[in-house]
Amino acid sequence: MEYPSKLIEQAVEEISKLPGIGKKTALRLALYLLKESEDQTLALSHALNELRQNIRYCKYCHNISDDEICNICVSHRRDKSIICVVEDTRDVMAIENTSQYTGLYHVLGGVISPIEGVGPSDLNIDALVNRVKDSHGAVKEVIFALSSTMEGDTTTFYLTKKLKEYEVKLSTIARGIPIGGELEYADEITLGRSILSRTAYAKD
Amino acid sequence: MEYPSKLIEQAVEEISKLPGIGKKTALRLALYLLKESEDQTLALSHALNELRQNIRYCKYCHNISDDEICNICVSHRRDKSIICVVEDTRDVMAIENTSQYTGLYHVLGGVISPIEGVGPSDLNIDALVNRVKDSHGAVKEVIFALSSTMEGDTTTFYLTKKLKEYEVKLSTIARGIPIGGELEYADEITLGRSILSRTAYAKD
Repeated sequence: MEYPSKLIEQAVEEISKLPGIGKKTALRLALYLLKESEDQTLALSHALNELRQNIRYCKYCHNISDDEICNICVSHRRDKSIICVVEDTRDVMAIENTSQYTGLYHVLGGVISPIEGVGPSDLNIDALVNRVKDSHGAVKEVIFALSSTMEGDTTTFYLTKKLKEYEVKLSTIARGIPIGGELEYADEITLGRSILSRTAYAKD
Repeated sequence: MEYPSKLIEQAVEEISKLPGIGKKTALRLALYLLKESEDQTLALSHALNELRQNIRYCKYCHNISDDEICNICVSHRRDKSIICVVEDTRDVMAIENTSQYTGLYHVLGGVISPIEGVGPSDLNIDALVNRVKDSHGAVKEVIFALSSTMEGDTTTFYLTKKLKEYEVKLSTIARGIPIGGELEYADEITLGRSILSRTAYAKD
């Protein structure tokens, strides 16, 4: 496609590098910015620069943070004996939204994926092992909350092998039929797993 | 939703002001930028600033341009007796892609839309009337190529009224069944219009 101006071509080029945004959408966004006030564009580019240049990560859990230690790790109301291992910040936000978890987190920053060239050394794995080791038994449980994909399962497997030697309970979040989900629409693997991992009713 | 950092909240806030991008997508884009190199973010924000601050519009057709007069208006190979009126730059690009049109353009910068608060004075309408008037008959035809919506039709109607007094042929692009379109799937209004505006076969 030929653009009427180098400036717009450059902007489209850069915007369309973002995931899920093609050239047509990029052009639509660029023209939108041209119609809106100059301040809006400046605020956007300033926010992006600030984010990229000044972002910090919690030195314990590696979650995005404004300070050296994040709000969760610093809080006295969190149970410091449980660590929930997740892929990225969005997973922390999703679990926090449930209000069902009061322990700490550990953000890996991805999952092991040979296809995308992500190996164990690219992730915050050593930091997790050190957290467990250096706690000298204070960390009692590590919960794996990674995606139920090949990469997620590989990462969980790798981590269980690394953590096996320490006195710590390892667990993974439950897989099964979602609440409100109908059996007939569930895939076979999920349904099969939900039968194998059935929960016993407490009799009393 | 609670964000783990002010910087990410600000970035999500600004990104989600873009049309068609919600908070979840904005967060995904922000996290993507954090994973990629700092250079990419800087290049993106630089391109946006450059675009917004240095963009120019052709003084004749008001299309986006690098120079005072755009490539199309300056070209000796374009037929200067025909002006095609369009809403924005994307329409110019779409028509140029067809390679079927050799005249000039006039970019209105929008269509009349009382709901969105866009009146005739917000568009490059006076400039169009002056182009026709000041040509002293050199402009022989004005083609309206606006969207076939209520706003587009209103704008076309307004423009025809404004241009009626000049010695210039007014026309509008053909409406009908798209090439390759099947009759049974066409909407009634388009199909009805395509019968009323039928084209006679040339006999020879």
